[in-house]
Amino acid sequence: MSRVSLLSDLLSSIGARSWFLGDDATRRIALPELAGLCHRLVSSRGEASGVRLAADILKGVRALDDAEAERLFAILAEEFGPDEAALRDAAEAFASSPGPATLSTLQRIAEPPRQELFRRLNLAPGGTAEIVRLRERLLPFLRRDRERLGPVEDDLRHLFQSWFNRGFLLMRPIDWNTPASILEKIIRYEAVHAIATWEELRQRLAPADRRCFAFFHPSIPDDPLIFVEVALTAEIPASIASVLDPARPVLAPDAAQTAVFYSISNCHAGLAGVSFGSFLIKQVAEDLKETVPSLKTFVTLSPVPGFAAWLAGLSPAGIEKLEANEKQAIAIVGESDWTASPAKVEAARPGLLSLAARYFLRAKRPDGRPVDPVARFHLGNGAMLNRIMHVGDISAGGLAQAHGLMVNYLYDLPRVEQRHEAFASEAEIAASRAVTSLLPGRGSAMKDVA
Amino acid sequence: MSRVSLLSDLLSSIGARSWFLGDDATRRIALPELAGLCHRLVSSRGEASGVRLAADILKGVRALDDAEAERLFAILAEEFGPDEAALRDAAEAFASSPGPATLSTLQRIAEPPRQELFRRLNLAPGGTAEIVRLRERLLPFLRRDRERLGPVEDDLRHLFQSWFNRGFLLMRPIDWNTPASILEKIIRYEAVHAIATWEELRQRLAPADRRCFAFFHPSIPDDPLIFVEVALTAEIPASIASVLDPARPVLAPDAAQTAVFYSISNCHAGLAGVSFGSFLIKQVAEDLKETVPSLKTFVTLSPVPGFAAWLAGLSPAGIEKLEANEKQAIAIVGESDWTASPAKVEAARPGLLSLAARYFLRAKRPDGRPVDPVARFHLGNGAMLNRIMHVGDISAGGLAQAHGLMVNYLYDLPRVEQRHEAFASEAEIAASRAVTSLLPGRGSAMKDVA
Amino acid sequence: MSRVSLLSDLLSSIGARSWFLGDDATRRIALPELAGLCHRLVSSRGEASGVRLAADILKGVRALDDAEAERLFAILAEEFGPDEAALRDAAEAFASSPGPATLSTLQRIAEPPRQELFRRLNLAPGGTAEIVRLRERLLPFLRRDRERLGPVEDDLRHLFQSWFNRGFLLMRPIDWNTPASILEKIIRYEAVHAIATWEELRQRLAPADRRCFAFFHPSIPDDPLIFVEVALTAEIPASIASVLDPARPVLAPDAAQTAVFYSISNCHAGLAGVSFGSFLIKQVAEDLKETVPSLKTFVTLSPVPGFAAWLAGLSPAGIEKLEANEKQAIAIVGESDWTASPAKVEAARPGLLSLAARYFLRAKRPDGRPVDPVARFHLGNGAMLNRIMHVGDISAGGLAQAHGLMVNYLYDLPRVEQRHEAFASEAEIAASRAVTSLLPGRGSAMKDVA
Amino acid sequence: MSRVSLLSDLLSSIGARSWFLGDDATRRIALPELAGLCHRLVSSRGEASGVRLAADILKGVRALDDAEAERLFAILAEEFGPDEAALRDAAEAFASSPGPATLSTLQRIAEPPRQELFRRLNLAPGGTAEIVRLRERLLPFLRRDRERLGPVEDDLRHLFQSWFNRGFLLMRPIDWNTPASILEKIIRYEAVHAIATWEELRQRLAPADRRCFAFFHPSIPDDPLIFVEVALTAEIPASIASVLDPARPVLAPDAAQTAVFYSISNCHAGLAGVSFGSFLIKQVAEDLKETVPSLKTFVTLSPVPGFAAWLAGLSPAGIEKLEANEKQAIAIVGESDWTASPAKVEAARPGLLSLAARYFLRAKRPDGRPVDPVARFHLGNGAMLNRIMHVGDISAGGLAQAHGLMVNYLYDLPRVEQRHEAFASEAEIAASRAVTSLLPGRGSAMKDVA
Repeated sequence: MSRVSLLSDLLSSIGARSWFLGDDATRRIALPELAGLCHRLVSSRGEASGVRLAADILKGVRALDDAEAERLFAILAEEFGPDEAALRDAAEAFASSPGPATLSTLQRIAEPPRQELFRRLNLAPGGTAEIVRLRERLLPFLRRDRERLGPVEDDLRHLFQSWFNRGFLLMRPIDWNTPASILEKIIRYEAVHAIATWEELRQRLAPADRRCFAFFHPSIPDDPLIFVEVALTAEIPASIASVLDPARPVLAPDAAQTAVFYSISNCHAGLAGVSFGSFLIKQVAEDLKETVPSLKTFVTLSPVPGFAAWLAGLSPAGIEKLEANEKQAIAIVGESDWTASPAKVEAARPGLLSLAARYFLRAKRPDGRPVDPVARFHLGNGAMLNRIMHVGDISAGGLAQAHGLMVNYLYDLPRVEQRHEAFASEAEIAASRAVTSLLPGRGSAMKDVA
Repeated sequence: MSRVSLLSDLLSSIGARSWFLGDDATRRIALPELAGLCHRLVSSRGEASGVRLAADILKGVRALDDAEAERLFAILAEEFGPDEAALRDAAEAFASSPGPATLSTLQRIAEPPRQELFRRLNLAPGGTAEIVRLRERLLPFLRRDRERLGPVEDDLRHLFQSWFNRGFLLMRPIDWNTPASILEKIIRYEAVHAIATWEELRQRLAPADRRCFAFFHPSIPDDPLIFVEVALTAEIPASIASVLDPARPVLAPDAAQTAVFYSISNCHAGLAGVSFGSFLIKQVAEDLKETVPSLKTFVTLSPVPGFAAWLAGLSPAGIEKLEANEKQAIAIVGESDWTASPAKVEAARPGLLSLAARYFLRAKRPDGRPVDPVARFHLGNGAMLNRIMHVGDISAGGLAQAHGLMVNYLYDLPRVEQRHEAFASEAEIAASRAVTSLLPGRGSAMKDVA
Repeated sequence: MSRVSLLSDLLSSIGARSWFLGDDATRRIALPELAGLCHRLVSSRGEASGVRLAADILKGVRALDDAEAERLFAILAEEFGPDEAALRDAAEAFASSPGPATLSTLQRIAEPPRQELFRRLNLAPGGTAEIVRLRERLLPFLRRDRERLGPVEDDLRHLFQSWFNRGFLLMRPIDWNTPASILEKIIRYEAVHAIATWEELRQRLAPADRRCFAFFHPSIPDDPLIFVEVALTAEIPASIASVLDPARPVLAPDAAQTAVFYSISNCHAGLAGVSFGSFLIKQVAEDLKETVPSLKTFVTLSPVPGFAAWLAGLSPAGIEKLEANEKQAIAIVGESDWTASPAKVEAARPGLLSLAARYFLRAKRPDGRPVDPVARFHLGNGAMLNRIMHVGDISAGGLAQAHGLMVNYLYDLPRVEQRHEAFASEAEIAASRAVTSLLPGRGSAMKDVA
Repeated sequence: MSRVSLLSDLLSSIGARSWFLGDDATRRIALPELAGLCHRLVSSRGEASGVRLAADILKGVRALDDAEAERLFAILAEEFGPDEAALRDAAEAFASSPGPATLSTLQRIAEPPRQELFRRLNLAPGGTAEIVRLRERLLPFLRRDRERLGPVEDDLRHLFQSWFNRGFLLMRPIDWNTPASILEKIIRYEAVHAIATWEELRQRLAPADRRCFAFFHPSIPDDPLIFVEVALTAEIPASIASVLDPARPVLAPDAAQTAVFYSISNCHAGLAGVSFGSFLIKQVAEDLKETVPSLKTFVTLSPVPGFAAWLAGLSPAGIEKLEANEKQAIAIVGESDWTASPAKVEAARPGLLSLAARYFLRAKRPDGRPVDPVARFHLGNGAMLNRIMHVGDISAGGLAQAHGLMVNYLYDLPRVEQRHEAFASEAEIAASRAVTSLLPGRGSAMKDVA
């Protein structure tokens, strides 16, 4: 038995109980009683029967309707925070005489009992997944009551950053031999290019030139956290349609030179802000490099979610200063069905690409980062903006958000760290010549048009 | 595929890399450079190459000799604590105007960067096990420099309480089909009744009336955290020798009425104080109840590690006040080879049992808890002191620490919670009539002799 | 690790190579060369490179078109049979002086080299599955050339009876956690009540009151040999529609009293005549009895595939002698859409049930067995014909083959052996009173109408 | 899930029942009754309850003492052979008019019902292993009653050649992560260089430059059929002691150029004559070549079991004709403790090697094959006799059987087939120049001395 199968064997001997609360496990418990159970669980009295108490609480939480859930979160905010008086004393004690002892007291008192509550809820079978769902339910309420509920959310996110540490995550391939119960979740979670049927799913998983990988947490083994879909191709594809075409010839893996990450989806709203996408992409790239040695290039095929909105938000004055071909492009993409006309498509090309270059290289948020969220993600990971593709995605969604543009981000593994640092410290955008050369001359600097 | 095998399958697809740094992975790195790598890892610049950085640091740490290790811990204490000035400001701000904003700032600044450092070290393959070893190396230095190193230890323990949450642990049976690489660790870790040979190990695992269970962490699947050995018997055994006798007839499991937990061993000094023993005992009891329905009684067969030392520490005045048979017992157990004489054994019995009853029921630490550490553990779990056994362990060790006494703690599952609470809140010691009736009359209250 | 996971672990360490030739592994080899390779493989010279030779031959066979395949089978018949002259000598030698030596020679020479050829073809990765497919390809040719090709088929069937011995088969549950690659085969193989979509499949596998089990051979682990679908119900259902109704309330398994085997499908034509259905049903019944202790009754819900054809084949004279209600039923079921009229349905009931009773209890093949093949299967397994259900299956197929009738066969485990023997030796049909009482009075004995 | 883990998962869902009769499952059944059960099992009446009947018979067989077992085998010989009268008729019918029909009848009647009996015994859980043990018990009786019992043994061997077809066997690595229950069998089965302790076992399995592989049958997953131990070395070692030296430096696998098969052991006497050793060696060689690409040479380090006996059997006249150094060697190895004297060791070298060359290249059995059984095995596999090593094994056993000689057989994969054929058809012995050059001049041809 290899060291790997030690792990497998270890886990095969575990009762389902250890991670599964039961799909239908709910129990009506009145809110005050539920709060009482929570208090009991964090008290020392809760230790001996923690597993049962935690399971009861989680079943009770599941049965809450939205209004009740919001009130429960308020209770968690109000009754499970640090003891303010004690904390004030500790803060004063530290401020007046800083040192290990006062620091330690301060730290201890500053940690809200809520964190211990969440850790003990995790004693219940399936607790981890339930606590993730708890944050999922909390997030909508945050918008209207951030001041009160924010600390609850802080505690959950803080906990998840520890629990879902990449060191604890397991990457596994998703393929046509994967259990249907997981595959149906892949269909449901796919967030970039929707999967309509099992046959479409099969097209993305079964052919020899397709790969898919997901991160799992050992305590939630039936539900992926994030997954990425990869196409092995000869060259960098120019459109998503060519990648997904079921009639394309299947490439023998050893003839593939390019791995295209064409879709990456987070699966759980409750884990928002707990980032593992960067780790997944890099590990997949490294694994593929080893198992498919012919691969030379690792790129994404990515949407440009903010382009259309950014363009629509340009001021008339800004538009005035654009190049002629840019104005022409704006006019064309304003027409309905422009993609049906090859002539219009060609006419829009130079201007649209020029605008896109401005969008990526010049349009910045107040913090100096690009306005495009996908660009921020990949550039932050150390990738380079490699190519902008006209009519890369002419689905309704692709036209609505990006007038059909798609882009590649290139993961050049040896340079990823350096690019990450330049982006992190200087907000320096790594872009290929092919992209930078699309920028119009210096006369039309972005500041002028934004 | 059952939900259970989902978990198994999930894990079988993982490369060893994800949890294994390599047995021999060390690299000499000078201490200043190592500290520099640590700073780099916690900085934002460390994100992109965190996995590699973390692995390098852990290899470097492995290569440190003890003096270097102590200096590294000092660096962790001094350079990776909270920013004192900022924390002082935050403490003052909170003290003067408590509220969500000042609280949140205070909490954020109070958390030492060390914690983030440890979390990022966990990115390395095998990181979890390495960080446990880190604390193992730290503990000896603590004794002579608690003030400086204490906060480092606090951070590790705090982290481990989150990481090794029982909800993340997996219980698995250890039996004669377990891989040899794990079994050799069982031999090494056994802390109560040493296992001298593989044949002795076989005797504890293979017979139909023996069970053993361990907790594992999914990130350290080849190394148990804690394990318990169980004998299935007809009645509560009177001595450890009768349990371990290789010549005893093997009992058919369905004839067993009693499950005897005769050895429980923690495996890693680095996890000291992160308690899972209570969870293991209770889960094993519940599982056995289901799989061996004939079982009625769940008891330990436990050593009494503090008895001889306590007895030796009694003052002459205290001894004076003892009952006659107690004094006689003290005299007898002072003779060498007394256990070889049946007459002496019988003569010592009443006095020794009486002294033991005092020891368990009257001898208290300043906090009001029993002085016996094993008693504190099981009573704290909600067990009851059920029986005290004369000549229960007449091995050299058993005589040295307890003049041959052993005890049973009874886990009566329906009453465990209530007993736990009574012990936790009132330090109330649950003891059977058989035990309490051993106490000598009221004239000799413990206070008098201790 | 349990003994079970020993098996699992054993097999997890096997390279795919050991059982998988590759989906697309074909190679054009001219027929004479292919025959030459076969001769070489059975010769002693083939031993050293048997694995490669066998793989080459199987790839070559795959590439054959039908005409070539038929010629290959003819070659196998003609060139790989026993040596006729030698066999004649051996037969004469045995006939003239029977004894161990002449017998042993006779047996050795009587075994066709084909059998050794097939055994050696099995050396190739995936050989077992390929040899099953070989028989699948052979079967159609048999119809027109049984004399020549029959011995080839005999040899394959004889081999399969040894290789697919129930002792080598593995039963496993098929559920919603089963890999999609296997589930798509379940959809394809379902022979009784077709599964149109993945959602329909899910309805048969995922609900708590559904079960499905299949037999696999360890050398063909990705392809079931036979599977049975089971519904857990309160009572014996009266129609297949009620069983398959997706809107039915799901029954908690511990409330189930009846296990209904409503579909059993053989998966491979190449294994025709190698019977494992009886073993599967009995093992499923025994396993369910243990895991769902509330189950009391094990019945099938079975089609009546021969009823309509039998009825249509009755002679006018035979029909003349039927009871009035039987004639009426014949008239009604001859009308289109009769099931749409509750009045007609009711009017047809008594006559149709009476005719069905004749069909099951009186219509016999020359060998004295019932004409209904499903009845022969279940009665041969030791089941009892328990109930005949009017309008049990009013799908187009159900009406066409059985005018909507379905039946239950009851597996009363303690009586299965005795009923099997009575059927095997006396052709005695076990039928409940509910069924036998449907037979019309003695005046209309079956002989009269058949 | 990979195709491989499909297999694993398939098997993990199997109850132990499907392959395990139980270690202690025996039941006293009187011999006549046992014979009756066997008759019943082969009859059609046995079908319905075959699983139970088969289990009962196997338990009964286990309980038989040797005398009873011998009588049972006699019953199997006498009552479960072909019907002689019918077979005589069939033989005559075929002899007088050969054709498919008479052939088919002849074949059917010539097959003894014993074969069907054994196949049905295999229905029992654990049947396969039990039937192997049956043959193990039969073999000793064969020596004194081959005429009567031979046909029973023929049937079992014939069956095993089908059941234990290499296509059904699974190769798995044996290492330090293998379950102890299997490792203790490795200790017990090791037939070439005994393993005295678990520590010695560890030395053969755990170091990075050691490998061990075994064949298993899926129906006997806890018990290997055959295993081979391999050392990865820089060069071909000159002695077994250097291979087994626990103090040797461990070689990094990627520095290894040679794989030395230094021990190969069959595990079950009941499978004698069912050969899989050749397949195991070749598959291990191929697998190692792929996983350790630095390997260039695959050799055995083999004993020479027949050398001393052959030498002792030389006639005085034959000895007379030997070369002078040969006579000197014979004299030296006749002295006790000669290996303790370096001078004697050196003095014996040329003569002993010369004698060994005669032994391997000239000493033949009547069928023209070498007298050395290990030589017949490896040469028959297509290996070449590569080197003869003086003082290769100076253990007591090595001296007793071969005066300390060991040899290498070289597996040169591309030439294995051709050498196998030359040996199979011409009894041509492939030997290196290093070996053939040891032969003394033509004057001393083997015929003269043997």
